[in-house]
Amino acid sequence: MADPTMFKVNLDDAEFVTPASLQEYTATILTAVGMRPEEAAVTAEGLVAADLRGVESHGVSNMLANYVDWIESGHMNPRPEVRVIRERASTASWDTDQGLGLSMGPRAMATAVAKARETGVGMISMGNGRHIGMLAYTAMQALDHGMIGLVMTAASPRVLPTFGRDPMFGTNPIAVAAPAREHAPFVFDAATSVIPGNKLTLAERLGQDLPPGVVADTDGTPILEATPPAPEHRERLLPLGSAFESGSHKGYGLACVTEILSSLLSDTLHVARLGLSFANHFVAAIDVDAFVDRESFLDAMDLFLGDLKSSTPAPGHDAVLVAGQPEAEYERVRRRTGVPLHPDVVATLRGIASRYDVDDVLQAGAGPTAA
Amino acid sequence: MADPTMFKVNLDDAEFVTPASLQEYTATILTAVGMRPEEAAVTAEGLVAADLRGVESHGVSNMLANYVDWIESGHMNPRPEVRVIRERASTASWDTDQGLGLSMGPRAMATAVAKARETGVGMISMGNGRHIGMLAYTAMQALDHGMIGLVMTAASPRVLPTFGRDPMFGTNPIAVAAPAREHAPFVFDAATSVIPGNKLTLAERLGQDLPPGVVADTDGTPILEATPPAPEHRERLLPLGSAFESGSHKGYGLACVTEILSSLLSDTLHVARLGLSFANHFVAAIDVDAFVDRESFLDAMDLFLGDLKSSTPAPGHDAVLVAGQPEAEYERVRRRTGVPLHPDVVATLRGIASRYDVDDVLQAGAGPTAA
Repeated sequence: MADPTMFKVNLDDAEFVTPASLQEYTATILTAVGMRPEEAAVTAEGLVAADLRGVESHGVSNMLANYVDWIESGHMNPRPEVRVIRERASTASWDTDQGLGLSMGPRAMATAVAKARETGVGMISMGNGRHIGMLAYTAMQALDHGMIGLVMTAASPRVLPTFGRDPMFGTNPIAVAAPAREHAPFVFDAATSVIPGNKLTLAERLGQDLPPGVVADTDGTPILEATPPAPEHRERLLPLGSAFESGSHKGYGLACVTEILSSLLSDTLHVARLGLSFANHFVAAIDVDAFVDRESFLDAMDLFLGDLKSSTPAPGHDAVLVAGQPEAEYERVRRRTGVPLHPDVVATLRGIASRYDVDDVLQAGAGPTAA
Repeated sequence: MADPTMFKVNLDDAEFVTPASLQEYTATILTAVGMRPEEAAVTAEGLVAADLRGVESHGVSNMLANYVDWIESGHMNPRPEVRVIRERASTASWDTDQGLGLSMGPRAMATAVAKARETGVGMISMGNGRHIGMLAYTAMQALDHGMIGLVMTAASPRVLPTFGRDPMFGTNPIAVAAPAREHAPFVFDAATSVIPGNKLTLAERLGQDLPPGVVADTDGTPILEATPPAPEHRERLLPLGSAFESGSHKGYGLACVTEILSSLLSDTLHVARLGLSFANHFVAAIDVDAFVDRESFLDAMDLFLGDLKSSTPAPGHDAVLVAGQPEAEYERVRRRTGVPLHPDVVATLRGIASRYDVDDVLQAGAGPTAA
């Protein structure tokens, strides 16, 4: 579920833009910088989906300038040619030619869905890749087909193994999306580190202390009290579980699983050997209908999610939340109000548009009164 | 990786028995109590595998008497007839007829492996089941076929959701096994709670304090300092991550994933609706050769595991460990010394043999001098 305490735009200052215009704007920029129009459109939809779902860290405001920079600097290929390494009825491995994961992921999921329709499951490993954005976006592509989507990414090393001093893993997130009927779909999307890297950056910017058990000292010793963030922590994130006594070997093991499926099954090495700029992915679709009657499954999901939401909360909490529920609520509101952006972000976006000599298509949204 | 500090037999007191005789003994008892000989043999191998790998919590000493009791009390069906609910080229869903997961798991993995050989991947969901023992045992069945094994189990509710007071999940473990060449295979096997339930029981028995962040108060508030174990904690385990600030919503989300794949994909409800005695499982095999050249993969695994093991340890630690490595070392030693058992355990085992009027076939192992 989304962290309700971090990464939120201050609504008092925000300008609201319509999701459609933000998406059109983003696609236009990405096309201008060299991406194929259809891949730019998918990327734009994925970025705006993050903004709509309250995941600003992976939205237009936080990622578009990076994507533009990476294309201009040659770090990312705007027109990748996917090479199929191997393929069977349910599986394929792809070399994604340094393409953006956020545009390749939905394409891989579409292939996985087609395979799953035939055999029950589809799996695609994707090597030689780049940033995949909000992982849930790719996972959620399975939902409309009545399927469960699973996505993993192995990325730039910044997380320590248990007992270790050196960063050996990315935050290697895992996302799983499963459909429900009346409830919002179950959408899990979480780093296998305690926090994702950009929360650390944000804490630095805001001058907020990090919670206990989030980072290690430079010698690898987990810091188990609140601590002010420092630049050396950026590559000293702790695996989920924080310390061995509280299960960090489990977060570490899950990071290994992500690395094996994403990197080693796509004919590349683990990312710590590849260097900072790589990201390898793993995408799977599981057809619910291959296992059980789809309608019964949706009923069972509703019962499951409903039981969780209606279970008794602990003191100090209003309710038990379910993964994907807060994000769905953000999306419901923001489809009405528009996406809130900090005025500096809007100025930056307009600057990019001007640099590429494209029309500024951003349109004002209804704003907070429409919430 | 195995927890080096808990669950270890005191070697000064132990009697050593040969793995072969312990396995024969166990299979004989399980057959006497009503299991089919071939399923009793698989179960015995799985129990002794746990003892050999240093996972006594899931070995003969800790589980056999339970399995006998469950069969005698009618809670577990010694001769289950598996019913295939649905089947496709890569998938199947099974009703396992209240059979023991430890004997059904390897059978499901064999089916998954056969499907994976054809299509690249095989997945079996298994509903209406019982205890699956050491999850890694089922996952490791894939290794000899050059495949990656993945297994999950949803079991009796004893874990709280984040912000919640009521137990809604089992410890819902996940196991993943992947082959390597020179290194021991990667074998991850971990509860999605901070600790498995039997560690709590052991701490109670030994009068040891629990580490911080392992259990909650009866009102659901996470206990974030060391605390003496109490019976009310048995159904108040915290999800991996301990508290929201340190990522417990991730352990909680992974518990949901396990529940969805194991229970909801096998035409049953989530275990909290089924009651204490149920366990549903999910088994998958991924054929490495469907994605990449198998020999290249083994080289890449060795490089990956070697880089982890040779990375610099943090102060106070001799080395960075890899999942499956400590267990493989236990097995190497115990195949020589025999399996160490507490004299009380040996007496109990001999008592069971006497009760079923079967020969006592246990043979003394070489003992600790052979280590």
